[in-house]
Amino acid sequence: MERALELARLGAHSAHPNPMVGAVVVADGAIVGEGWHVAPGTPHAEVVALRNAAERARGATLYVTLEPCAHTGRTPPCIDAIAEAGVSAVRYAIADPDPSVAGGGAKLLAESGVDVSGGMLASEATELNAAYLIHRVQGRPRITYKAAMTIDGRTAAVDGSSKWISGPESREMVQQLRAEADAIMVGSGTILADDPSLNCRLKGFAGTPPVRVIVDSAGRLPAGARAADESAPTWVLTSSQGESALRSRFGDSLELIALSDGSGQLDLGEAMARLAQRGIVELLCEGGASLAGALLDRDLLDRCIFFVAPAVAGGSAGSPLFGGNSASTIADVTKMDFQSVARVGDDLMIVVDPRPGAGRGTDGETHRS
Amino acid sequence: MERALELARLGAHSAHPNPMVGAVVVADGAIVGEGWHVAPGTPHAEVVALRNAAERARGATLYVTLEPCAHTGRTPPCIDAIAEAGVSAVRYAIADPDPSVAGGGAKLLAESGVDVSGGMLASEATELNAAYLIHRVQGRPRITYKAAMTIDGRTAAVDGSSKWISGPESREMVQQLRAEADAIMVGSGTILADDPSLNCRLKGFAGTPPVRVIVDSAGRLPAGARAADESAPTWVLTSSQGESALRSRFGDSLELIALSDGSGQLDLGEAMARLAQRGIVELLCEGGASLAGALLDRDLLDRCIFFVAPAVAGGSAGSPLFGGNSASTIADVTKMDFQSVARVGDDLMIVVDPRPGAGRGTDGETHRS
Repeated sequence: MERALELARLGAHSAHPNPMVGAVVVADGAIVGEGWHVAPGTPHAEVVALRNAAERARGATLYVTLEPCAHTGRTPPCIDAIAEAGVSAVRYAIADPDPSVAGGGAKLLAESGVDVSGGMLASEATELNAAYLIHRVQGRPRITYKAAMTIDGRTAAVDGSSKWISGPESREMVQQLRAEADAIMVGSGTILADDPSLNCRLKGFAGTPPVRVIVDSAGRLPAGARAADESAPTWVLTSSQGESALRSRFGDSLELIALSDGSGQLDLGEAMARLAQRGIVELLCEGGASLAGALLDRDLLDRCIFFVAPAVAGGSAGSPLFGGNSASTIADVTKMDFQSVARVGDDLMIVVDPRPGAGRGTDGETHRS
Repeated sequence: MERALELARLGAHSAHPNPMVGAVVVADGAIVGEGWHVAPGTPHAEVVALRNAAERARGATLYVTLEPCAHTGRTPPCIDAIAEAGVSAVRYAIADPDPSVAGGGAKLLAESGVDVSGGMLASEATELNAAYLIHRVQGRPRITYKAAMTIDGRTAAVDGSSKWISGPESREMVQQLRAEADAIMVGSGTILADDPSLNCRLKGFAGTPPVRVIVDSAGRLPAGARAADESAPTWVLTSSQGESALRSRFGDSLELIALSDGSGQLDLGEAMARLAQRGIVELLCEGGASLAGALLDRDLLDRCIFFVAPAVAGGSAGSPLFGGNSASTIADVTKMDFQSVARVGDDLMIVVDPRPGAGRGTDGETHRS
């Protein structure tokens, strides 16, 4: 199963929005077939591994990181291929929460006489496909907030400048994160301040360019913004009012997603559901502070990745890491859990997850000054 | 020499303001004597080790972490003891920069026919006695700024509350830092806000209680402040004006150190020299932001130890990590170097050193708003 997880990871840049899956066929203690899921529309990992094993699959054991599917999607059901190959046992790491699979695969295999069981290296497999699982279970993307900051928590100096807080190794890591994302999201304030291209410039990257998602309720995105160029798709989450401003400025060259805005604020929960429906599983939010703060307030942040530069900005001015209200008393801070910390060049890369339910309330207005 | 460094560390709580020194006598490949410097007034490490070895020292090699002294202080010169013991070789890690030693010890030993050389594990020994070396070379204490903060760089919430940002394991580490310090320093604002006792409450701590140093140019320290109680000495760095206010409030119960205040600001360089003259070698600054910012501006910070709690305060309010001006543009941030990062309970402990000369200018007024 460890080898199957290794194989699964080979799909990190290309499998999404599908899960990363790896499979290994073992006969008489030796690997006789391997496969991983490369991209949507290509064969599933099990099928590749079984084809690879050919006749040697008969009576063998199939190890696969995700429960085999029983439904016809873009490819035929995997359990048919497994039955045809004549494997005698299937070991999978985790069940597939997708409603069209949901335990069905394992059940049908067992009924057809295959010795089938799940749970092997389950936590590793859960971690590997955290985004896919959140997408299928909660109906929204996994949302990661990435920011570069000083030790004292500033993402930009007083004049708004932020190039380059972090070092080249950290910036290369950001390209890696972009390569693994289905979409990169920023608020319109970030576009107006920095005019980023939001492209994936990872060397050797051959996957689908991530969609650029811009949260722009007022329709402020300017003509000629780099993030609206032709190098990748651009979707704008906006209000009905913002939609008409943007339509007149951009015509049909942008994908506009109009959201209800009854409260004068975009409903971020609805926004994330709309992105999930369009196949966005892994979403990388790159700021600004206001958008990140609103996601945190709404319990929509799954993970933060902070690149901390060995530098101090000083004082209280400059851009904070999270916008919105400050904790009025110490008991009101938003609790998180450190997952990992590593040196990246001269910087630290800190991965920290907000505790579920720790958001500063769902009252978006309160926190979006 | 590694064993000698281990022995030296046994003096971490008691040797200061003297350096930590360890010594080992080796004859025929076996350790025949060990010693370390326990406290001022007690015998030096070499002497202890040689006494311990007794006759076995004759013809042996002495390993010592600091160049043996050639002067009579509170104890007789070590080189006399070395000559008497009849060791044939001396290996030391680093030279003693103290003007009364300064190469003299090694030179005299060599002249008396002992095979003597320095430089063995020199960087470890330099790190071990960094404070002592700064004290002797620069005439000021080593200054460490310790703070507990949220991920977004706040040391207190909007209402000033900060208990407890960090977890119990981090607070225990702070007691360890206090035990290793000769003095603990805070600004008077911290006294007014938190009324800390600034005592060392490390379990089993039997060393001299660190001096409490309060920077209080205006003489605001209130009667009854815990940091002015009888549990440890309290020194107040103040102006001549502050001195008279404090004298009338406290009589002779506090040690007042009046500094020149021509510019309306205490001269922190002079203040640190005065502390060094009084034997303060290791100084732990525990805030607040204004004092820490002024030290940083004046290039007086050697080391920062930050306990980062897994929590976010949000927004721009609450106490910043360093007071004074904020970097107006990104090139103006103060550069530092990460030394280490470790998990301490649920927190991160980050050790980061300001680069020498990276301070934000020596113009105290500009940065103390």
